[in-house]
Amino acid sequence: MTTYHGPALVTLATSLLLFLCAAYVGRCRVRFGIRAPATTGHEQFEIAYRIQMNTLENVVLFLPVLWIFTLSFSSWWATTFGCAWLMGRIWYALAYARDPRTRGPGFLLAMLSFAALALGSAWGLGRGLFV
Amino acid sequence: MTTYHGPALVTLATSLLLFLCAAYVGRCRVRFGIRAPATTGHEQFEIAYRIQMNTLENVVLFLPVLWIFTLSFSSWWATTFGCAWLMGRIWYALAYARDPRTRGPGFLLAMLSFAALALGSAWGLGRGLFV
Amino acid sequence: MTTYHGPALVTLATSLLLFLCAAYVGRCRVRFGIRAPATTGHEQFEIAYRIQMNTLENVVLFLPVLWIFTLSFSSWWATTFGCAWLMGRIWYALAYARDPRTRGPGFLLAMLSFAALALGSAWGLGRGLFV
Repeated sequence: MTTYHGPALVTLATSLLLFLCAAYVGRCRVRFGIRAPATTGHEQFEIAYRIQMNTLENVVLFLPVLWIFTLSFSSWWATTFGCAWLMGRIWYALAYARDPRTRGPGFLLAMLSFAALALGSAWGLGRGLFV
Repeated sequence: MTTYHGPALVTLATSLLLFLCAAYVGRCRVRFGIRAPATTGHEQFEIAYRIQMNTLENVVLFLPVLWIFTLSFSSWWATTFGCAWLMGRIWYALAYARDPRTRGPGFLLAMLSFAALALGSAWGLGRGLFV
Repeated sequence: MTTYHGPALVTLATSLLLFLCAAYVGRCRVRFGIRAPATTGHEQFEIAYRIQMNTLENVVLFLPVLWIFTLSFSSWWATTFGCAWLMGRIWYALAYARDPRTRGPGFLLAMLSFAALALGSAWGLGRGLFV
């Protein structure tokens, strides 16, 4: 167990989540007969595509801030908030796939975890700590 | 103030910009009554969505090259070009939101800054410098 | 030639690939007269846009795992699988641009390379090796 083990595992799990979102889009593409390059044509396909895109946007926000937080503040807290973020995003994806109107709570949990990481990073960098 | 402070702050500011683009999409979704998972239906929503997607694409291009440049060339120049890139992207987003035809100059400033970072990284790695 | 030279070059080449995908979208936007913010209206433009988005999704999956693999397992193998991934993605983009039905083999090569990196990273982190 080394210093950056926790955030590295969170990063790997984030990639797995994004991979599963992409796989769900692929499965919906086949099931509902949406031929590439179309991204519309059946509501469940469009839901799958939006889950993937929203997850993608949030991963691009999340990973750099996770690692700046890790390096400027605390690896342990990065792991904790990172796990909370992951749970929020998994909750969001599962709820959205069932009913788009229920995507709120998971989204909020992930957003609050992200806010904690972003504020912690700003504070850590503000104190002049990095690497 | 440590060696990687500047690029870390640029990275954090980039996340903030991407977050604000996503928040603008969310606000347009509510204001123009575009119910998820739709991504069309009102031109200003479509503009907001394109700003977010174009910013996302460019962040994924920018951040890895920013850090390779930092590690292989110069942290100070990475901060300088990174700030120019950020200014270009902010200009692009504000201009695009007002009128899509005016998105050119900000895009160009960001692209030139990115080109400087990419060429510097290639040169830095070519000289065999890294970490 | 230092330890992380290979993965850094793969990262830089990945950015170049993503940049070329974006440039192809831009060229199709002009050639087929698709005015921003529209992303539909001509099939070849939609193909270009899907190539870019799919590449983007996969870059966000790939880069974090490439570097975790590099730090927890082997820089040399990261470079090898990274080059295979790049070749798969280039093949995918060229084939998709010509005929969407031929995008399979390049996609598969990239996916297998990604799977190798992800499994190696999980194994490397499982053994407790990192940085």
